[in-house]
Amino acid sequence: MTVRFAVLGAGRIGQVHAKAIASVPGATLIAVTDAVEAAAQAVAEKHGCDLRTMETIAGAADVDAVVICTPTDTHADLIERFTGAGKAVFCEKPIDLDLARVKTCLEVVRGNGGKLMVGFQRRFDPDFLALKAAIDAGAIGEVEMVTLTSRDPGAPPIAYIERSGGIFRDMTIHDFDVARWLLDEEPTHVFAAASNLVDPAIGAAGDWDTANIILTTASGKQATINNTRRATYGYDQRIEVHGSGGSASADNHRINRVEIATADGYTRAPLQDFFMSRYAVAYAAEIAAFVAALADGTEMPTTGKDGLRALALADAAVRSVAEGRAVAVSEVL
Amino acid sequence: MTVRFAVLGAGRIGQVHAKAIASVPGATLIAVTDAVEAAAQAVAEKHGCDLRTMETIAGAADVDAVVICTPTDTHADLIERFTGAGKAVFCEKPIDLDLARVKTCLEVVRGNGGKLMVGFQRRFDPDFLALKAAIDAGAIGEVEMVTLTSRDPGAPPIAYIERSGGIFRDMTIHDFDVARWLLDEEPTHVFAAASNLVDPAIGAAGDWDTANIILTTASGKQATINNTRRATYGYDQRIEVHGSGGSASADNHRINRVEIATADGYTRAPLQDFFMSRYAVAYAAEIAAFVAALADGTEMPTTGKDGLRALALADAAVRSVAEGRAVAVSEVL
Amino acid sequence: MTVRFAVLGAGRIGQVHAKAIASVPGATLIAVTDAVEAAAQAVAEKHGCDLRTMETIAGAADVDAVVICTPTDTHADLIERFTGAGKAVFCEKPIDLDLARVKTCLEVVRGNGGKLMVGFQRRFDPDFLALKAAIDAGAIGEVEMVTLTSRDPGAPPIAYIERSGGIFRDMTIHDFDVARWLLDEEPTHVFAAASNLVDPAIGAAGDWDTANIILTTASGKQATINNTRRATYGYDQRIEVHGSGGSASADNHRINRVEIATADGYTRAPLQDFFMSRYAVAYAAEIAAFVAALADGTEMPTTGKDGLRALALADAAVRSVAEGRAVAVSEVL
Amino acid sequence: MTVRFAVLGAGRIGQVHAKAIASVPGATLIAVTDAVEAAAQAVAEKHGCDLRTMETIAGAADVDAVVICTPTDTHADLIERFTGAGKAVFCEKPIDLDLARVKTCLEVVRGNGGKLMVGFQRRFDPDFLALKAAIDAGAIGEVEMVTLTSRDPGAPPIAYIERSGGIFRDMTIHDFDVARWLLDEEPTHVFAAASNLVDPAIGAAGDWDTANIILTTASGKQATINNTRRATYGYDQRIEVHGSGGSASADNHRINRVEIATADGYTRAPLQDFFMSRYAVAYAAEIAAFVAALADGTEMPTTGKDGLRALALADAAVRSVAEGRAVAVSEVL
Repeated sequence: MTVRFAVLGAGRIGQVHAKAIASVPGATLIAVTDAVEAAAQAVAEKHGCDLRTMETIAGAADVDAVVICTPTDTHADLIERFTGAGKAVFCEKPIDLDLARVKTCLEVVRGNGGKLMVGFQRRFDPDFLALKAAIDAGAIGEVEMVTLTSRDPGAPPIAYIERSGGIFRDMTIHDFDVARWLLDEEPTHVFAAASNLVDPAIGAAGDWDTANIILTTASGKQATINNTRRATYGYDQRIEVHGSGGSASADNHRINRVEIATADGYTRAPLQDFFMSRYAVAYAAEIAAFVAALADGTEMPTTGKDGLRALALADAAVRSVAEGRAVAVSEVL
Repeated sequence: MTVRFAVLGAGRIGQVHAKAIASVPGATLIAVTDAVEAAAQAVAEKHGCDLRTMETIAGAADVDAVVICTPTDTHADLIERFTGAGKAVFCEKPIDLDLARVKTCLEVVRGNGGKLMVGFQRRFDPDFLALKAAIDAGAIGEVEMVTLTSRDPGAPPIAYIERSGGIFRDMTIHDFDVARWLLDEEPTHVFAAASNLVDPAIGAAGDWDTANIILTTASGKQATINNTRRATYGYDQRIEVHGSGGSASADNHRINRVEIATADGYTRAPLQDFFMSRYAVAYAAEIAAFVAALADGTEMPTTGKDGLRALALADAAVRSVAEGRAVAVSEVL
Repeated sequence: MTVRFAVLGAGRIGQVHAKAIASVPGATLIAVTDAVEAAAQAVAEKHGCDLRTMETIAGAADVDAVVICTPTDTHADLIERFTGAGKAVFCEKPIDLDLARVKTCLEVVRGNGGKLMVGFQRRFDPDFLALKAAIDAGAIGEVEMVTLTSRDPGAPPIAYIERSGGIFRDMTIHDFDVARWLLDEEPTHVFAAASNLVDPAIGAAGDWDTANIILTTASGKQATINNTRRATYGYDQRIEVHGSGGSASADNHRINRVEIATADGYTRAPLQDFFMSRYAVAYAAEIAAFVAALADGTEMPTTGKDGLRALALADAAVRSVAEGRAVAVSEVL
Repeated sequence: MTVRFAVLGAGRIGQVHAKAIASVPGATLIAVTDAVEAAAQAVAEKHGCDLRTMETIAGAADVDAVVICTPTDTHADLIERFTGAGKAVFCEKPIDLDLARVKTCLEVVRGNGGKLMVGFQRRFDPDFLALKAAIDAGAIGEVEMVTLTSRDPGAPPIAYIERSGGIFRDMTIHDFDVARWLLDEEPTHVFAAASNLVDPAIGAAGDWDTANIILTTASGKQATINNTRRATYGYDQRIEVHGSGGSASADNHRINRVEIATADGYTRAPLQDFFMSRYAVAYAAEIAAFVAALADGTEMPTTGKDGLRALALADAAVRSVAEGRAVAVSEVL
């Protein structure tokens, strides 16, 4: 079986997914669409696929699945529409910035009997998968604490910040998902501390740029997340998991493996500084996992519930900063 | 000038300090005392110093300074007594487990015009000093976040736990001090999450064994502390400081520098697992710093105020766990 | 300008090059050929190119360049034939196992005014390029010593060994090329020590499996190469260059970036153990460099002379082992 | 039993050994002597021991053992004299720069029934001991290749070079000893390449400053040694041992464990750059091993034969450079 794809939205991430589809065995790219026709045209030419409208893709008999890469505020509508049209849907995170809207969307998907995968590409990073596999194999005993270091090389433009839903819903949401995955138990409470240290303009836009978050579960497991919008040395993405029998960690990706030793010391290269190169392999593996789940008829590896839960943790973090206390997830969900 | 010392208490840590005094130029060990005479006798023989009583040491003309290594509940009384007797005092942390008692003690010291150094040996660790020096020299710009990983290899006996004042006052207090030192600004709020994951007996004793703490300052700096009473791979003591211009870290101490590569991977040795070997150099450097401050007539490098502040952070952490909120240091101090 | 390619030989390395051509901008794969038609057919189908004979490729107006991936004993003939037919030629190392044959071949190429690149893919590895760039930028001053660690994960089949020309012409030849590249001065003398420690069958086949080689140049620079046919922990490919101002090194590629800490120590993953995955990026970059040189009309980045020189060093190494002395390259070239 | 020591020679290394004796349980320092009385006086005062003459030490009933730290050209005579006087002798390497003189000296020692330990402190370095223990425990199977990187931070004064016996007898001799120890089989042949790249004055003094050496054994094991008199980044002392089942390595000693990450990359501290601090623990452990061997009546851990063999390898290296061939150790011994 070959899964026939259309890509909705031909921007940066749409191009990544188009390329992933082209490279994954068992997947073929049939069509692309974008409000900006030139963008869609470029993808169509590069991959030899059709340029179509949303309309025709929704009604097309030769399209099995769509990848939603349009602006965030269109995600929920498109998910509902395309699951309604009988297409399997892969949607970039988030489903929506509003938790209530996410819930109604997921109910519609359920009503449609739709298949929905939400894009949390980090779960498909080879290093993180190897870490998770080692943990599941018992290498460190029972998981007790997850420590995530997640630092962007630099802040996005203020215009982006303003539409982003804030650092917790835009940036930390990936960490919330990874924390849930590694804790293997739902966090029940969220405490977040947030500051403006990187750029006052971010504060003026009502957002934070520096944060530490503690998640706790009913059984007493804990996860911490360390975020900043500025790491001069690159895109800092580390995981450490502490367990009853030991500790497991996944290290960063450097630009190269060269080290220079002089009287000033030993210097290695800084980190890769763009999320799309850092997670290039993960993005392709994510589409491959979507294709495999469709081909095998198995459950989606990351679901609408994962999107919902991560967003709920973000909402709880927002409230925690405002109120200076640990917020129960049940208060926001 | 040579500083003439007496060591009060000849237990494990008293022996460490006696040895340090013997090795530091400008210091000489005159006398030792201990409730258990055999213990004091052993130290006296090893270092060729007198075995005396508390009484005679307090009145001795040939003793300039004392090092208090007796049980915690005697510290405050001895500090008051020996500063009153005109001796310079080095006291192992903590001054007392009760904040009010610490305050009255420090007032007595002030009234006595006494010199008091409180033992926070980590500040004298060569790696941590190098880290601090690099930061002070501007290597990472403005400090924004301090991340402390502080994990004991194993839990102490329950009898010790019961008298310890709890994990925050016993174990985290060192991290609180290091955080204050590296933030270079007083934390104003403390949030702590704590669990019992290592040993139910610790919970039964009313204490925690697993904790994550967030400290914040008025300007928005943040520090996190990650504690557990069990790290199978050794005594895990890492520092990372993130700044506007970069990040600085200090790594652990391994048992050796050997690495074995086989089909199973590359394996390095575990960490040193005893705090007294891990911080052996720091303990000696700490006494040397005390001697230098006395010789030069300069301020003590770690003061009664440092002891007070670290204990206040611990008290705030206890309350934070109980109430599930960020506690202002001003609430407890 | 687009360079139109035919691939001669559709075996393992032919497939690698076909895939590289497909992915390099400015290159297009027109045709493939192989004595085993099914192999060629598979490549033709995968990349949508023609299946042709040697004959028709040599005479084809729509083919600008060929990549020779046939058995070693056909390389020299094909180089002569295709440069004679006006095609640019990329040939996998070696040109031939016989130095005299290489020389006559290069004369024919010269007579044909042909363009010839010899495949030494390591020079195009991103880490090694970064190392070389740092050295060229003066990071370590004047180069004095090059240290190459080059260990295969396991020995090839004896049938392969028997046709390989021996360890120096088959395996070390890559190291000889890298040494020449990094020394930036021709080695004048070769000393080699060789043993059979891995497999007696290799010795029975008249070859060695363990070797250390010292190269020296007229100005006194030195390079060492450490070879074995068996490294249980993977494909060990390290470079270290020592200079008047410091030292530069390039580290290995691990299977993943995970580290597990337990009471037994800290364990990282073993190395990638297949040369084609280890140098996957290098193989693609090598073809891109060939295309760029053709497009720009610049000199080939690795030439027939490089192939000749590396082979001469291998011949000198063979003689050195036999005679227990440093052999001048001028004795064999 | 306490071993009562005299130290002959109160220079830099004599002070190191005096301090070691003072710190080792079961050893006591009775006397010191030196041609420069002030030097001996300083040691006597520091450690509270006698200042005596060679004469009186040789005849003293209260001295069991001597440590010879005088100039090299006095070693053999003193070894003969003090073993003749019934003292156990620890002598700094080398016994003499002349192989014939070493042989006659060892015969005299044998005739005297004397106990002689030759100082090769690296064998007592904790990291190297851990490496050796792992190998002996079978961690890497059969040893096949030993790779030693041994680089001085900077060249000694020319006056020192002139008396040193040359780089192989002065510097490489330690590596020859370590190679023998780790190969666990006598090298039979030596090939050495040597250059002058660091300082022409060294060449003018008839010595080399840059060298690579290959040692081979009868069974085909190989060892390489990489030497230079200048490593800007510190005292570079690495060992790697490759075996049938894996590889084991011992890493360098840095000044501290701090790493700074900025846009320019990740920088760690350079290496310790003084052999006496790098091997401080080894020097003390070496004396402790001497004391233990005397106390237990066991064989000396490093013997006169070790000194002889290492010097023979150095002599063979000298001849190898002159003649451009592998020299059999039997040619010089």
